[in-house]
Amino acid sequence: MKSLRDAIRPTTFLQPEALSERLGINLTIATETFQRTGSFKFRAAYNTALNADSSHLLTASSGNFGQALALACKLLGKRCHVVMPETSAQVKIDAVRSHGAEVVLIDVSKIGREERVDQLVSEFPEAYRASAYDDDHVIEGNSTLGDEIAARSDFEAVVVPVGGGGLISGISKGLCRAGHRAELIGAEPLLGNDAARSLAAGELVRNEEEPKTIADGARTVSLGKKNWEIVRNGVSRIVEVPEERIKKAVLRYFLDVNLKVEPTGALSLGALFDIAPAIKGRKVCCVVSGGNVDPAIYAGILQESV
Amino acid sequence: MKSLRDAIRPTTFLQPEALSERLGINLTIATETFQRTGSFKFRAAYNTALNADSSHLLTASSGNFGQALALACKLLGKRCHVVMPETSAQVKIDAVRSHGAEVVLIDVSKIGREERVDQLVSEFPEAYRASAYDDDHVIEGNSTLGDEIAARSDFEAVVVPVGGGGLISGISKGLCRAGHRAELIGAEPLLGNDAARSLAAGELVRNEEEPKTIADGARTVSLGKKNWEIVRNGVSRIVEVPEERIKKAVLRYFLDVNLKVEPTGALSLGALFDIAPAIKGRKVCCVVSGGNVDPAIYAGILQESV
Repeated sequence: MKSLRDAIRPTTFLQPEALSERLGINLTIATETFQRTGSFKFRAAYNTALNADSSHLLTASSGNFGQALALACKLLGKRCHVVMPETSAQVKIDAVRSHGAEVVLIDVSKIGREERVDQLVSEFPEAYRASAYDDDHVIEGNSTLGDEIAARSDFEAVVVPVGGGGLISGISKGLCRAGHRAELIGAEPLLGNDAARSLAAGELVRNEEEPKTIADGARTVSLGKKNWEIVRNGVSRIVEVPEERIKKAVLRYFLDVNLKVEPTGALSLGALFDIAPAIKGRKVCCVVSGGNVDPAIYAGILQESV
Repeated sequence: MKSLRDAIRPTTFLQPEALSERLGINLTIATETFQRTGSFKFRAAYNTALNADSSHLLTASSGNFGQALALACKLLGKRCHVVMPETSAQVKIDAVRSHGAEVVLIDVSKIGREERVDQLVSEFPEAYRASAYDDDHVIEGNSTLGDEIAARSDFEAVVVPVGGGGLISGISKGLCRAGHRAELIGAEPLLGNDAARSLAAGELVRNEEEPKTIADGARTVSLGKKNWEIVRNGVSRIVEVPEERIKKAVLRYFLDVNLKVEPTGALSLGALFDIAPAIKGRKVCCVVSGGNVDPAIYAGILQESV
């Protein structure tokens, strides 16, 4: 059995000159698009499957976590059920199945994801219920990316996509552990701005329903409780990114960096379009959470620009 | 003034699990999509601009070499003229200009690229005429990628896109210098199969005109003379890749590797679709030469698949 650090791939750091010049900052990209299963979620999923006290895992996921947990369970010889909205990107559904996990599709207007997992828990009481973000194993798994960022350079700011808060809380943990003093900035869709509202209110605020943002990895109702406890202390601000700016960031990565990024992964660059003038000249690490996007959606974003 | 090794970025090595499984080989990708200016050509161009005995460089290029030479000249404080077919990808023309070089557009049905450079040589007799491939400085610059591949692992085969032969001859030089014993395999468009015909004939064979392949970096009439001398001795075979297979490779990189690749850069994977069964289980390095592609062309390739 492999340790977490043996199982994951190191992140890929890029120094995009044209984009740095355009933004007026000293930019480094930490991209998880080449992580196993194409997103940072493999860090979380492998650590969860490794440490879960069961040989069967159940989870709800908008896609990347499910795919990552499916591969992690395959590598560790465990059974895996993944509840997914039927509106998930087809490539993500296919990928989960390709790793041998059982996919349970739901209509989110009729039943909540967690409600459907509740049903599975009744059916398989011995199984481990894995959260895509609100779980110490997840946060610990993602903290390895914080370790890598801390070891890379003395960044003044680190900008991170935010859905349920699993990634940013993990990075916060890794940076703190290393005594790294970067300002940690979150980037979430304006359509689902619960994290920004939570930080403003000083308490965990929820969206009324899953936001219909193109950033399908951030279609979460709220931060997880464990994530919120870290975010409230470790994150200086959350930038709310409008849909048009998410798409513009996906396109900019294509044009200036040769980097294929999924909309959720482009949130952090979308935030930088907004805040770069305020942090001019600073040394910034922009985290790309993943690259898995349906070709039709991606082609649509490219063509809006033509 | 920086040395070549300080100026270039190391290549990015990826271990694509899904693609390895699909092909049945132990695959490593060496991608130059994140090299400065988005292709391997920067290695060649910087070394040329660094060693040229003039402060003014002239060249003809279908795009990537021009862009790379433009940046190299900017970094080294030299003047630069680039002759480009008016059918070049717009992003490539724009990129050359963005680095301060002067672009001379031509209609290749009316005047040859080299003929137009001849005119510029008459106009600027003190300038250095830089070839995108047929130049010792170019081959030496590209040999640094061979060094990196040799240092990475004991590959049994290395597959490389072929246009004018600058990259494969450089890699051959680097691998030989390191005593690396990989079989070196070229991949060129079937529509412009002069290198395969040259290897079969044992002498340098030319296409009658520039091939109209989607792989715009391989729209060359023949290998360069210096490149041919290295290819004839160092390359075991050249695989001819049909247009459909080039596009399929671009799509496969998108779906399985999250890697944005330009059609020319996808030639080597296109070749592997053909020869993988014959090298089953082998340890193979697949070189991606660059990632610069017009969004409309790229979107078109993705949409053919939908």
